[in-house]
Amino acid sequence: MATLIIGNSRTAEMVGDLAALTPAQLRSGGCVAQRMLWFARDGDLLVLPFAPAPEYLTYVTGLTGTDPASLTIVVPPPGSLGADILTPDRLADPGFRDQLRRALGSRPPDEILAIYKDLSVAGLARALAAEAALPGYPFSAQAGDALVNSKAGFRALAAGAGVPIAPGTVVTRPEQALEAVTDLFDQGHSVMVKLEFNGGGFGNEILSRTAGVAPAGAPRVVVLPDRPAVLTYLEQRWEWLTAGRADKLVVERFFPGSTTVYAEYLIGDRGARLIGLGELLMEPVAIGAVLPAQTIDARTRATLLDGAQRLTDSLRVLGYRGVVSADAIHTPDGQVLFTETNCRLTGSTHVHLVLDGRVVDADHREKRVFLERGGWAVPSFPAAVERLAAAGLGYDPISRTGVVITSDDGDGTVDCCAIADALATAEEMHHKLGGLFAGER
Amino acid sequence: MATLIIGNSRTAEMVGDLAALTPAQLRSGGCVAQRMLWFARDGDLLVLPFAPAPEYLTYVTGLTGTDPASLTIVVPPPGSLGADILTPDRLADPGFRDQLRRALGSRPPDEILAIYKDLSVAGLARALAAEAALPGYPFSAQAGDALVNSKAGFRALAAGAGVPIAPGTVVTRPEQALEAVTDLFDQGHSVMVKLEFNGGGFGNEILSRTAGVAPAGAPRVVVLPDRPAVLTYLEQRWEWLTAGRADKLVVERFFPGSTTVYAEYLIGDRGARLIGLGELLMEPVAIGAVLPAQTIDARTRATLLDGAQRLTDSLRVLGYRGVVSADAIHTPDGQVLFTETNCRLTGSTHVHLVLDGRVVDADHREKRVFLERGGWAVPSFPAAVERLAAAGLGYDPISRTGVVITSDDGDGTVDCCAIADALATAEEMHHKLGGLFAGER
Repeated sequence: MATLIIGNSRTAEMVGDLAALTPAQLRSGGCVAQRMLWFARDGDLLVLPFAPAPEYLTYVTGLTGTDPASLTIVVPPPGSLGADILTPDRLADPGFRDQLRRALGSRPPDEILAIYKDLSVAGLARALAAEAALPGYPFSAQAGDALVNSKAGFRALAAGAGVPIAPGTVVTRPEQALEAVTDLFDQGHSVMVKLEFNGGGFGNEILSRTAGVAPAGAPRVVVLPDRPAVLTYLEQRWEWLTAGRADKLVVERFFPGSTTVYAEYLIGDRGARLIGLGELLMEPVAIGAVLPAQTIDARTRATLLDGAQRLTDSLRVLGYRGVVSADAIHTPDGQVLFTETNCRLTGSTHVHLVLDGRVVDADHREKRVFLERGGWAVPSFPAAVERLAAAGLGYDPISRTGVVITSDDGDGTVDCCAIADALATAEEMHHKLGGLFAGER
Repeated sequence: MATLIIGNSRTAEMVGDLAALTPAQLRSGGCVAQRMLWFARDGDLLVLPFAPAPEYLTYVTGLTGTDPASLTIVVPPPGSLGADILTPDRLADPGFRDQLRRALGSRPPDEILAIYKDLSVAGLARALAAEAALPGYPFSAQAGDALVNSKAGFRALAAGAGVPIAPGTVVTRPEQALEAVTDLFDQGHSVMVKLEFNGGGFGNEILSRTAGVAPAGAPRVVVLPDRPAVLTYLEQRWEWLTAGRADKLVVERFFPGSTTVYAEYLIGDRGARLIGLGELLMEPVAIGAVLPAQTIDARTRATLLDGAQRLTDSLRVLGYRGVVSADAIHTPDGQVLFTETNCRLTGSTHVHLVLDGRVVDADHREKRVFLERGGWAVPSFPAAVERLAAAGLGYDPISRTGVVITSDDGDGTVDCCAIADALATAEEMHHKLGGLFAGER
């Protein structure tokens, strides 16, 4: 009963052209992939871009109660972009595939759990004669995941399901974009443009006729006072906005002051199971999350779940299987407007499925708040673990509270998830981390 | 209770880049659009690329029992590609929109019937404050129709619905295409490559390792004896195969000797209604159709309807409303493999909805075979009508049999639909047309 776990973060359908990633972005993607260790259970086999640091492996398996000696970790040879992320060429390497077959031996995987199920993962499943182990294989083998991770495709799917979305449209030509942007400007609104394929807000830009708009969900605001300025912007940015004219572009009304909430599900053949409901922390792009979401009332929660459920119904009928996060903005005037579906493991799936349910056992999960933030500078991963323990801040399996270091981001920073019985306590834990981790590297 | 009928054939999502169409193709597209006259009922308003010839208008309305004087026909000013087809710029023309509003006056359309519901049709509906009259407006206004007319998107939709498709996949890069083609070649098969957006077989090519394969469903067979030849082909044709790298490419196993069958439905909010089941005549691309299909047995018919019904369920959940044709090949060994959904009025919708049910009344429709073929060279449209009548071959409303000229193709040829109580009789009618129409132009 082994699971084959594939740490294929990033993919082109998650973040755009992989060759355009900087060395730091590649390294960061590979570090995120190491988080797949959270999902491992005894006997599982993991494909990772590089071998995890022994201290990280020991730390994670210690918290999940997994025997690290029972795990098999396979690392394919470096590919055209190096050894930081699992690019398609690495997953297709014949020597790697032979090694994987030998490692699996006579126990074909019962399930394949990949971060993202693109054609290279479907091809690997096929090469292992393990198509049945990959949920939604028929859909994924026909490049279906690209459709359901497209921010453009999302708007049609949501509109078709009767789910509320921000006013706007999907365009393929600059003149269509010009009309869509100026229409929204003329109504007195700012605009968010969104690349079809990207994540975390990095593929978004906010356009405004006037200065003074605070960015949220995008790295910056571009001020375009008149139609010629919009036209010039579109001409200069068109290649970027459409990934070299290959992709569609979303043009939506921007709602300042909104928060970003989401409902995450696991879609199976007969229905979808809610696995978490959270709020993303945007400064101005995603830097963390609070689970469960704390700022929405019961009515808003019900609205979020109703729309998300309808989206999962459509995705299930289309043929997608696996984790999906339905993201929405909660506007200052109380609207819930859906913005995208992420049909992949998200930045919070390890919290929903592992920290919340395995590390914190099922009996206590309803009573805990999880506050995860990245970017904590630490001297080293082992030093950070030691200092946490020395300060009595580390996760305590008896009280089911404390701080878990969820990932080592490879740039001298770590992600920390504070687990507490209330948001204020979790925030206080994060407050203490600043002083704790400061010091020489 | 007026319908606004929009003759917007062709669109970019039907045939690819409109600017690449030849003058003859533009003219032919505009002539096809005139077939929308078949759908008109008393009081309807039609938007056509150019005014129909009076003889054609009289002929069509005479057979449908429509009062031509009750119809309003609005023709927008010429656009960037001239006056042959209803390009988006023509449908957006402010003067035209004003004229349309005046023509509609105080009677907003109850329904908008367009050949294809792209963003320009959705925009026109919005400009007329008639969104509710366009079936599936929310989906179409978010460019949803592009998704459900994509041959690439189709494969994921079909695989997700458990509907049989030809072995193959969807690719975005030449190296993926090379693997997909050589995989199928290595299994001893020929290959069909399909542009994401095109129609009638014109966006398809058959690739074969050896000579001697007869084309069907594509204009030609390209012989590529080895891997370097495949690579060279892909390099040289990549721009065409991907519409300048903007689109995906379908790579499928080619099944020689297959016939093409389809089931056409009208999708509404609660379900889909079967409106016809036919066989396309491929020589080697579509030149006509037989309705109902004559070459399939009851079991094959049931298989076709089962898969088509599942596809319409998925399309309905996605949000598409209106006519869809689910196309399949019927292979020599009896398989039914679905190949695409056309979410638009098809080349046979006028037969299914008008000739079969209005011209031939509902009481007799079950007893008739419709055989339509294009390419009949005639001296002129009026002369063709006269000769048909003189030979006693024209449609007779008493016997409910005879030949109907369904369209004047603008190049000296017409399409003819023979209506008879058996296929052999319909074929005989077509046989007679050759002699009838010969002569000076």
